Amino acid sequence: MVNIAVLGFGVVGTGVVEVIRKSNESINRKAGDNINLKYILDIRDFPGHPESSIMTKKPDDIFHDPEVNLIVETIGGTGIAYEFTKRALLSGRHVVTSNKELVATHGPELLQIAKEKNVHYLFEASVGGGIPIIKPLYECLAANEITSIMAILNGTTNYILTSMAKEGKDFDTALKDAQVNGYAEANPTADIEGHDSCRKIAILSSIAYGMFVDYKHIPTEGIKNITYDDQKIAQALNFKIKLAAYSKVLGNKVFARVCPVMLTSSHALANVEDVFNAILVSGDAIGDVMFYGRGAGKLPTASAVVGDIIDIAKNIDRSHMYVWTEKQEDNLLNPGEVETRYFVRVKVRNSEEAKNYINKIFGVTEFIGLLGYQDQLAFITNKGPDKEISGNIDKLKEIASVSKVLTSLRAIE
Amino acid sequence: MVNIAVLGFGVVGTGVVEVIRKSNESINRKAGDNINLKYILDIRDFPGHPESSIMTKKPDDIFHDPEVNLIVETIGGTGIAYEFTKRALLSGRHVVTSNKELVATHGPELLQIAKEKNVHYLFEASVGGGIPIIKPLYECLAANEITSIMAILNGTTNYILTSMAKEGKDFDTALKDAQVNGYAEANPTADIEGHDSCRKIAILSSIAYGMFVDYKHIPTEGIKNITYDDQKIAQALNFKIKLAAYSKVLGNKVFARVCPVMLTSSHALANVEDVFNAILVSGDAIGDVMFYGRGAGKLPTASAVVGDIIDIAKNIDRSHMYVWTEKQEDNLLNPGEVETRYFVRVKVRNSEEAKNYINKIFGVTEFIGLLGYQDQLAFITNKGPDKEISGNIDKLKEIASVSKVLTSLRAIE
Repeated sequence: MVNIAVLGFGVVGTGVVEVIRKSNESINRKAGDNINLKYILDIRDFPGHPESSIMTKKPDDIFHDPEVNLIVETIGGTGIAYEFTKRALLSGRHVVTSNKELVATHGPELLQIAKEKNVHYLFEASVGGGIPIIKPLYECLAANEITSIMAILNGTTNYILTSMAKEGKDFDTALKDAQVNGYAEANPTADIEGHDSCRKIAILSSIAYGMFVDYKHIPTEGIKNITYDDQKIAQALNFKIKLAAYSKVLGNKVFARVCPVMLTSSHALANVEDVFNAILVSGDAIGDVMFYGRGAGKLPTASAVVGDIIDIAKNIDRSHMYVWTEKQEDNLLNPGEVETRYFVRVKVRNSEEAKNYINKIFGVTEFIGLLGYQDQLAFITNKGPDKEISGNIDKLKEIASVSKVLTSLRAIE
Repeated sequence: MVNIAVLGFGVVGTGVVEVIRKSNESINRKAGDNINLKYILDIRDFPGHPESSIMTKKPDDIFHDPEVNLIVETIGGTGIAYEFTKRALLSGRHVVTSNKELVATHGPELLQIAKEKNVHYLFEASVGGGIPIIKPLYECLAANEITSIMAILNGTTNYILTSMAKEGKDFDTALKDAQVNGYAEANPTADIEGHDSCRKIAILSSIAYGMFVDYKHIPTEGIKNITYDDQKIAQALNFKIKLAAYSKVLGNKVFARVCPVMLTSSHALANVEDVFNAILVSGDAIGDVMFYGRGAGKLPTASAVVGDIIDIAKNIDRSHMYVWTEKQEDNLLNPGEVETRYFVRVKVRNSEEAKNYINKIFGVTEFIGLLGYQDQLAFITNKGPDKEISGNIDKLKEIASVSKVLTSLRAIE
């Protein structure tokens, strides 16, 4: 018997309870054991709720009950969720979570405790909602040296960018519509500024490269500066603008970044629209493989949580031991040194002078025609160190023939 | 120590050896044990080969060696491969394979033996090459009732269809080019007639729905009748023609089919080009999730085989027990009763008369304009039982105003 306590009865918590109730029989069959929901912890009242007989506001009801051997943490954040998770693991209980902030922040410590106590700390739901990615990356692709990951990991920003591109909205309108439709939160900062994607690529990279990648050191840009014009021009040029989260391993160092990019429309991620997520993984044997689906939502996320619960039930006496090394301060590459191209669009006072200058400092001779934007120039730079190219873009702001740098986005083929 | 014997040193077998040699250290670390390649069995000579010290032509060298605890079967087919697999499992050895014919044909018996002997019989490589699909389907999505699968499972036919569409080739030229480029075998029957896809959808369906789906009962059509005109017209109408393998569960019965289909270009599978494979899985909690990558090739396939080897090393004392029920003759739905739409293109003698007739028997009033094909009509039927619609299409062949039915393909939105 696996006795479960769900901590936090919000969106994901209710989804987990719903899935367990709905598919109880097939879940028990697949788990080879009875999955018994014993407690739901939440500080709020749910009067008349069908689950009220198992609800409690007292954590000790759970932690003092020796029958509870699996904790589902769906509280979120790094406060009380951290405290409960640590307490659960230290007391020899398995923990399943969807909490990306906690895993990205305290992953190494919590995984170490889980390893010492021979229990599981599983978090498939923390990245990509219901898309199976952590386990496939760690287990199915184990024969590979993973060389890079490129992903769309945030449904909110992808929804906003898609509706800007398809429906000709500016950013503010698209954001408001996303909020009205329930695809963006009232406070959308974590999504639109890229923090959510940043934590997720940190988790994926840690799994893929076997060393803890600290999200605090990943350069992260959001999508607030993307304009309707950017989208219109990208479309005309057969590009898509996406908020990409990507990383690669070079020697024993990792490079990771979150930023909006221009993707050629033939790129595997270019057609990932609306709230969908996709993760493109490259390995030395497999080549490219992609995982695609709904990256958020009550039931998809619950699907991943319950998948982890079943996994634990089948392997209750042994931990999975995701092998992350301890924190290292120096395992991230200087992102300024990593080579990239930029797509640049400028407003010019004197087109010929500007072209000559751009040719001189960027070595660019080909300019992209922008129908309907006669006083503008656009070009794609050669590949070079990020810092050098962005420095050159900064210089453009100071020359007389250029009145404004309208867009500078990394371009990915 | 896991002592491995590789049976069959063909494309996949050499790939497995290559991956184990190349990434030995990281594989051992992830497996938590030493993966030791002890034998390679092949009836051929490989004079001067670097692995010649572990090569043998005598199966008994392997089966009489009690140290060998894991057999990699990469022989293919259902002859000697069946015999060796059965012998290996009965003698308490784990078996990993890429052999889809064997799994699709003798899966229930072999899985039953594996279960009785508490050993693993794993076959991640049998579907989708290196794409992780069997384990994600069985484990990560275990919280779901899987409701349907739609997939492109054969790289050869997808390559041919893509080059017909992109390069304006007819079928025979595209097939020849695929053979020259190594994407089609000298005898391409199993691929182009859909048999390969059929075995793979049978395996996936058996895993997804928890009951053995016998490939012999899955209606299967290949791509030989697809013409250059079909491709040109599909493109103009924003469709893609793909060889689809699909199945769904209805009550306690399964419907499965392999056939070329017209997919709207916004369908998740429509942009799967060249030799790539993709599998779209729908579950009651997850919604849609897609797995995409190279469905064949030496190293991608070896990646999946070695992933299974690592999995076994980590769980050497317990079997996975993929739960398939025994063969049931009556678990497949009558495919004629399943609802579908068809795209139909006919050559007409009298357009108005033909339209009237089509309107009368199909209830269709909208016809698709075919620029450059003045003596032709195209339309998409309403949804109805497959047998009824295909029967009506057959009737078209007999009326005076229609001189020929050029195309009839199931249409999928």
